[in-house]
Amino acid sequence: MNPARPAAMLKLSHFLKSGNKFFQSRSAEISTARQSYGSDGKSFAPRVFADYAVFKGRAALSAAPVLPTFSKMDSGYTKVDRRGVIMLTFRPAIGERKYDSEKKQLFALSVTEVGSFISLGPGDSCEFLHDPSMKSRDAGQVKKSLTIKPMADGYFISLSVTNKILQTNEYITVPVSTAEFAVMRSAFTYALPHIMGWAHSTNQTSDSIGKDFPKIHPQLAATSEWDR
Amino acid sequence: MNPARPAAMLKLSHFLKSGNKFFQSRSAEISTARQSYGSDGKSFAPRVFADYAVFKGRAALSAAPVLPTFSKMDSGYTKVDRRGVIMLTFRPAIGERKYDSEKKQLFALSVTEVGSFISLGPGDSCEFLHDPSMKSRDAGQVKKSLTIKPMADGYFISLSVTNKILQTNEYITVPVSTAEFAVMRSAFTYALPHIMGWAHSTNQTSDSIGKDFPKIHPQLAATSEWDR
Amino acid sequence: MNPARPAAMLKLSHFLKSGNKFFQSRSAEISTARQSYGSDGKSFAPRVFADYAVFKGRAALSAAPVLPTFSKMDSGYTKVDRRGVIMLTFRPAIGERKYDSEKKQLFALSVTEVGSFISLGPGDSCEFLHDPSMKSRDAGQVKKSLTIKPMADGYFISLSVTNKILQTNEYITVPVSTAEFAVMRSAFTYALPHIMGWAHSTNQTSDSIGKDFPKIHPQLAATSEWDR
Amino acid sequence: MNPARPAAMLKLSHFLKSGNKFFQSRSAEISTARQSYGSDGKSFAPRVFADYAVFKGRAALSAAPVLPTFSKMDSGYTKVDRRGVIMLTFRPAIGERKYDSEKKQLFALSVTEVGSFISLGPGDSCEFLHDPSMKSRDAGQVKKSLTIKPMADGYFISLSVTNKILQTNEYITVPVSTAEFAVMRSAFTYALPHIMGWAHSTNQTSDSIGKDFPKIHPQLAATSEWDR
Repeated sequence: MNPARPAAMLKLSHFLKSGNKFFQSRSAEISTARQSYGSDGKSFAPRVFADYAVFKGRAALSAAPVLPTFSKMDSGYTKVDRRGVIMLTFRPAIGERKYDSEKKQLFALSVTEVGSFISLGPGDSCEFLHDPSMKSRDAGQVKKSLTIKPMADGYFISLSVTNKILQTNEYITVPVSTAEFAVMRSAFTYALPHIMGWAHSTNQTSDSIGKDFPKIHPQLAATSEWDR
Repeated sequence: MNPARPAAMLKLSHFLKSGNKFFQSRSAEISTARQSYGSDGKSFAPRVFADYAVFKGRAALSAAPVLPTFSKMDSGYTKVDRRGVIMLTFRPAIGERKYDSEKKQLFALSVTEVGSFISLGPGDSCEFLHDPSMKSRDAGQVKKSLTIKPMADGYFISLSVTNKILQTNEYITVPVSTAEFAVMRSAFTYALPHIMGWAHSTNQTSDSIGKDFPKIHPQLAATSEWDR
Repeated sequence: MNPARPAAMLKLSHFLKSGNKFFQSRSAEISTARQSYGSDGKSFAPRVFADYAVFKGRAALSAAPVLPTFSKMDSGYTKVDRRGVIMLTFRPAIGERKYDSEKKQLFALSVTEVGSFISLGPGDSCEFLHDPSMKSRDAGQVKKSLTIKPMADGYFISLSVTNKILQTNEYITVPVSTAEFAVMRSAFTYALPHIMGWAHSTNQTSDSIGKDFPKIHPQLAATSEWDR
Repeated sequence: MNPARPAAMLKLSHFLKSGNKFFQSRSAEISTARQSYGSDGKSFAPRVFADYAVFKGRAALSAAPVLPTFSKMDSGYTKVDRRGVIMLTFRPAIGERKYDSEKKQLFALSVTEVGSFISLGPGDSCEFLHDPSMKSRDAGQVKKSLTIKPMADGYFISLSVTNKILQTNEYITVPVSTAEFAVMRSAFTYALPHIMGWAHSTNQTSDSIGKDFPKIHPQLAATSEWDR
């Protein structure tokens, strides 16, 4: 047994409950889900971690996909419980090629924010706002703002975190070259169907063909396009 | 046994017989198929459901891939029986973040319609017309029109359904932001080879290499490029 | 036993020997291959066939990926023996929605020709020339020309086959809409790393990690980048 | 036993230690890794080799993906130890369709250099500089420069290697057509998430769902986005 797991699950449960606006509206929609794999941490985590990191003079920025969680419905079908994200991690520099993980700041790009990111044209900029405590009693106490702004050869990606409770105001910015941004764009585009769960729903490989899985899409079972 | 399944199969059979024009012409072509997996529902359904949904003031729109069905030919080969679709589901709002699944309307984007969708340039618009009862005695009684029209930041995606039998005329429209549209474009592009069946035909992974599957492409067996 | 197989292998062997220029120069390069899986037809064929077809008034055009073949080297490594292709099949119409498979004509797009196809801009055109008998005593007797030319909404894809021996000259043309071309472009782009064999060489999934496959890339074993 | 393997591992170890600048800064970051699969060569090599090669009058250029290596951490998680590369190999011509493997020169495109490559616009050019002996006592003795410059129909890809120790200066250039470059761009884009390790971390297929892998992403376990 790994003693760190219960604590981890607590965080995840926190993660699940106080997610950003998008998660909130989603969870309203998927209220038919009864049993969640998440209760024991199964089906949650990827088994291989592969950050893409850029190390600059004042800070480092790394990005990694976090896969969705799945839940089984009463019908026996599996569906996405919570979509995945692209997790951005900012670490301020504390010396030559040394970065302070104690002071790291996270920003979880939602599926739609990833859509914004990968469709940024040259010279475009964008901003995403997160309130980690949204819909809890601490709503509005912490505000995170991620901005992407064009520079001569690439973009500045910057995170500003204002915490009214701790009365702190942190700002970390990382210049990302055109080549590094191209890597992110490609990698995020690749990851998008995975964090949405589409890679899972389409992954009926040729190996599966002919196997016994007599499940029908609930929508199709209930009503086809020409049913009304 | 799941009692819902026979009914589901009836719908699917309906689906198969009264599909849109594209399916019709296809089925003319694939008349060599003898035995269909579809008769018992096997090989049809994906096992994981992962809708991408956007929730707006007046309605919600969700999209999900539906995989193709496959059939075995006399020769022992497997081929695509019916191509998959991207199923769009519109639900009108009936309160704050509540959407009426009873009044949902479906529109199944064919492979070629997905091609139109993903190649829409900024400012472009398009329209797809479906007659769910095409080639049956009810042909022309129900007409569905899906339109995609540019707006300031994204597109309006709208479904109009005219039912002469029920004398109803429904119209649902959902504003889809540029970021949300970018997610759809990426996800649909990802899904395209899966709903076409190409992901299945190319999924001879390195694990398969060296295994025993001595099948030859019928076309190549019958005639190679330089055979005439 | 399938009696058609020996004949099929004969054709494939023919395919291997009299391929187009690109295959020829490749085979010069891969002379280190000793043992070929192809001799018994193993590892050659995909198990699922999924053509993308467009049916028009005068002819139909269908496209399907054909995977590469692999061979084992003395060292125990597996490498691509012959790259795959995108096989285009033209069938003239002989009635309403009826197409003549007896008079079909094939054209196998090589990897590099697929590169041309998917990078065609709006208004661009291209032409590919194949001599199926190249380097045999019949060289120059049969000439195939595939042309792609822009039209109002899409492209005309046309195949011309001149056979001096049979004194025939056939020409089949199919108008492909912008949406259909977008499907082909997406599907061909998807298929490209599969017909190149890159999908096989990168398909070391997380399942494989930790398994025992102590093979080293021959290039790296022989010399690394900074070895000279 | 393959007698070449110990030597190969030596090279790989060299590869690991004297890699280019990007690897260096990465290795500073991943100092938490304790146990490396690489010590016995496991988990390193792809099992299928599939070069994409273009053969021209004066030289040949081939490209192939080299997958990342992985290491297990004390926690039991697996993470990318060293990112993969796209290995470019140049071989000078020594006759008609004969190329000299003895005089081949390698250039390993890093993940970020691949990002540059795939985002090259028409008419753009770029240059990458490698010092294979960087940070060793031989630093600066060997310099490699890869340049990509536009030509009428495609790009010239050229490698210049200056070796002060051997007092040699080699230069190989290969004209790559627009179609060939499109193949490379597509194939490199496909390979990018594989050489980054993202394909491994997202490859939790539907088969894995429900299986027992109770691992949590260390970042999420330690702190979620709204934890500070």
